[in-house]
Amino acid sequence: MRTDRLQALSDGVFAIALTLLVLELPVPAHSDHLARDLAAKWPSYAAYVVSFVTLGIVWINHHSLMDRVARADRTLLELTLLLLLFVAIVPWPTALLADYLRDAGQASVAAVVYGGVMALMASAFALIWRYLLRARELAHPDARGRLRAASRRSLVGPAVYGAGTLLALVSAPAAFVVYAGAAAFFALSGRTA
Amino acid sequence: MRTDRLQALSDGVFAIALTLLVLELPVPAHSDHLARDLAAKWPSYAAYVVSFVTLGIVWINHHSLMDRVARADRTLLELTLLLLLFVAIVPWPTALLADYLRDAGQASVAAVVYGGVMALMASAFALIWRYLLRARELAHPDARGRLRAASRRSLVGPAVYGAGTLLALVSAPAAFVVYAGAAAFFALSGRTA
Amino acid sequence: MRTDRLQALSDGVFAIALTLLVLELPVPAHSDHLARDLAAKWPSYAAYVVSFVTLGIVWINHHSLMDRVARADRTLLELTLLLLLFVAIVPWPTALLADYLRDAGQASVAAVVYGGVMALMASAFALIWRYLLRARELAHPDARGRLRAASRRSLVGPAVYGAGTLLALVSAPAAFVVYAGAAAFFALSGRTA
Amino acid sequence: MRTDRLQALSDGVFAIALTLLVLELPVPAHSDHLARDLAAKWPSYAAYVVSFVTLGIVWINHHSLMDRVARADRTLLELTLLLLLFVAIVPWPTALLADYLRDAGQASVAAVVYGGVMALMASAFALIWRYLLRARELAHPDARGRLRAASRRSLVGPAVYGAGTLLALVSAPAAFVVYAGAAAFFALSGRTA
Repeated sequence: MRTDRLQALSDGVFAIALTLLVLELPVPAHSDHLARDLAAKWPSYAAYVVSFVTLGIVWINHHSLMDRVARADRTLLELTLLLLLFVAIVPWPTALLADYLRDAGQASVAAVVYGGVMALMASAFALIWRYLLRARELAHPDARGRLRAASRRSLVGPAVYGAGTLLALVSAPAAFVVYAGAAAFFALSGRTA
Repeated sequence: MRTDRLQALSDGVFAIALTLLVLELPVPAHSDHLARDLAAKWPSYAAYVVSFVTLGIVWINHHSLMDRVARADRTLLELTLLLLLFVAIVPWPTALLADYLRDAGQASVAAVVYGGVMALMASAFALIWRYLLRARELAHPDARGRLRAASRRSLVGPAVYGAGTLLALVSAPAAFVVYAGAAAFFALSGRTA
Repeated sequence: MRTDRLQALSDGVFAIALTLLVLELPVPAHSDHLARDLAAKWPSYAAYVVSFVTLGIVWINHHSLMDRVARADRTLLELTLLLLLFVAIVPWPTALLADYLRDAGQASVAAVVYGGVMALMASAFALIWRYLLRARELAHPDARGRLRAASRRSLVGPAVYGAGTLLALVSAPAAFVVYAGAAAFFALSGRTA
Repeated sequence: MRTDRLQALSDGVFAIALTLLVLELPVPAHSDHLARDLAAKWPSYAAYVVSFVTLGIVWINHHSLMDRVARADRTLLELTLLLLLFVAIVPWPTALLADYLRDAGQASVAAVVYGGVMALMASAFALIWRYLLRARELAHPDARGRLRAASRRSLVGPAVYGAGTLLALVSAPAAFVVYAGAAAFFALSGRTA
C-alpha cells in the first residue's frame, strides 16, 4: 500500500485542527469596553499559541517519521488514525483551558483534560514508532538502523505530558507552564522524534 | 479522466468530517462543577470515538477501493460525491446521538437518524463496487478478478446498519452497541471491503 | 507556473465548503418531540442536498476545466480565487434559505441571496473560460479547438441562476424548484461545461 | 527534506482559513425584516471580501516563494508554521472588524487588532525571505540571484499594515480603507513578493 493518501489525510486533519483552534478566540457580543474585554481573555491567546505550536511540532515529527516509511500496511493506517483521533480533538481541551484557566476552582480539571489528551496523542505517536520497529520491512532500508533510537526518543512526549497531567492535579498554572515550556523547548531545540 | 483530484477531494472531505466531529464535544459555560459536568457528557465522547473510527474505516476501505481503480468516468465521480454527501453529514447524527442518548423519550429518534445515515453511506459505498463490476474497464487489469467478491462483501455494511436502525426503534442503547460493535469489529478484524 | 498547487487549494476549498454545509443542519436543544422538530426542518435537508449537489457539479466542471489547462498565469490564479470566493460563501445563503424558506414574508429575500450567489459563482466560472479563450497558450494544445464551445456552454449557468433570482422576487418556492431542478438536470445529464 | 508535504499543509491551512471566513456572515434568527437586517450587516461582507482577497494574495505569494525553493530544512518548516499561525487566525480579527466597524466607540480596537494580525502575518512572510537569503542552498540555483530583491519587496507588507494599524488608533474607517486598498492594489498590480 502506498503512503501518499495516508499523508494527504494526515496533512488534512493537521491543517483543519490547526485552523479550528481559531474558533475558540473571543468575539465579545456588543462590548462597550472591547480592549478590556479582549485583554481579559489572554488565556485564549496563550492556549491558541501553545496548541498551535504543539500541533505544528507533532506535524513536523510526523513528516519526519513518514520520510522513513516506504509503504503502509493496515496496522500502520489504523495507528495513524489513532494519532489523528487525538490530533483532531485538540481544539476541545484548548477551549476548556482557555475558558477555565483563570477559574481557580475548576482550572485543574481543564488542565488535566488538556494534559491527558496530549499524553494520549504522544503515546499514539510512540506506538507508531514501536510498531515500525517490529515491522521493519515497512521502513526505507537506509532508515532501519535508526528506528530504535527514534522509538526510544518518542517516549519523552508521553513522559512529559504524563508529568504535566499529574502536576495539573495540584496547580493548573504550573501545568500550563510545563505544556508551554515543552512546546517552546521542542520548537527551539529542533529535535525531531 | 485521472483519479488524483477525486482522491484529493475525497481525502479533504474525510479529513474535515473527522475533524468537525470535535465541535460536538462539550465546553460548559461557567461551570462550577466542571469535572461532574464533563463526566455527565460521556455520550459525547463515546459518539465521537464511534463516529471517528467508523469514518476512519470507511476511509481505509475507500483507499483500498481506489487502489484498484485505474481511471474515473463521470458516473464514478458522481457516485463518489454521493458517498461524500453522507460522509460530510456524519457530524450531524453524531451530535444528535450525543445530545439525546441519555434522554429515554427521544433517544430512539436520534439512534434511527444515526443508523439511517450510516446505512445510506454504506449503501453508496456498495453502489460504487456494483458500478465497478459493470464498468470493469475502469479497474486495474489485475484487480478485475476480485471485484465480484469485494462487491458482495460491501453488502455487509448496509445490512448491519439497516438492522441497527430497526433495533433503534426498540432500544437506542442496544442500537448504539451495534454501531460501536460494528466499528470495533471492522477495525480489529482488518477486513477491507 | 504549474497548476498543481492551484488544484490543491481549489480541492481544499471545495471539500471544506461541502463539509461546512453540515453546520446548518438542525440539532434542537432539549427537544421533547425530536421526530417532529427534526421533520419540521425539512428545508434544511433540502437545502443541504441542493447545495451539495450544485457544488459537486461545479467541482466536476472545474476538474474538467483544469484537465485542459497546461499551466497557470497570475490572471488565471486570480480568476480561480474569485470563483473560490463564491464557492466558499455557499454555506451562508444555504443557511439563510434553510431558515427562511417556510417564512412566507421573508423567503423571497433568502431565495434572491441564494440565486445571486449562485449566479455570481457561475459568472466567475464563465469568466475563466472566456479568459482561456483569449490566453490560449495556457491550454493543452489538443484542447484549444474546443475552448469556444465550452466557453459558450458556460453561459448557461449564469442565465439559469439569473432567471431563478428574478423568479425569487415573485415566489421563493418556485425559485427553489429552479435551483434544485438545475442541480438535478446537470447531475443527470452528465454535461460538463 | 522535500517540500511537498509542507505545501500540502500550507494549502490546507489557507483553504480552511479562506472558508472559515464564511462563519462570520450574518444569519439573523427569526428576522421580520430580513432584507434590512442583512443590509445593515454590510461591514461583514466588506470584511469577508477584504480578508479573502488578502489571504488569496498571500497564498499566491507563498506559491511564488515555494516555486523558488528546492528543499526545506527544519528552520524553514518552523518559519512557515509561524506564517500559518497568523493565516489561520485571520477569521478572528475579521469577525471583530465585522461586528464593531459601525460601533464608533470600539471600532478602533477592532481595526488595531486586524491591522496588527496582518502586520504580523506580513512580517512572518518577510522573515521567510530573509532566511532564504541566508540559507541560499535551499533555493533553486536559478532563483538565487533574485532573492535579495524579493526579500526587499517583502518589507512593503509589514510597512503598509504597520501604518494602517497606527492610523486605526485615530480612525477605524480610514484604516479599513487602507486594508481594502492594499488588497485591491496588490491584486490588480499583479506584484508577487
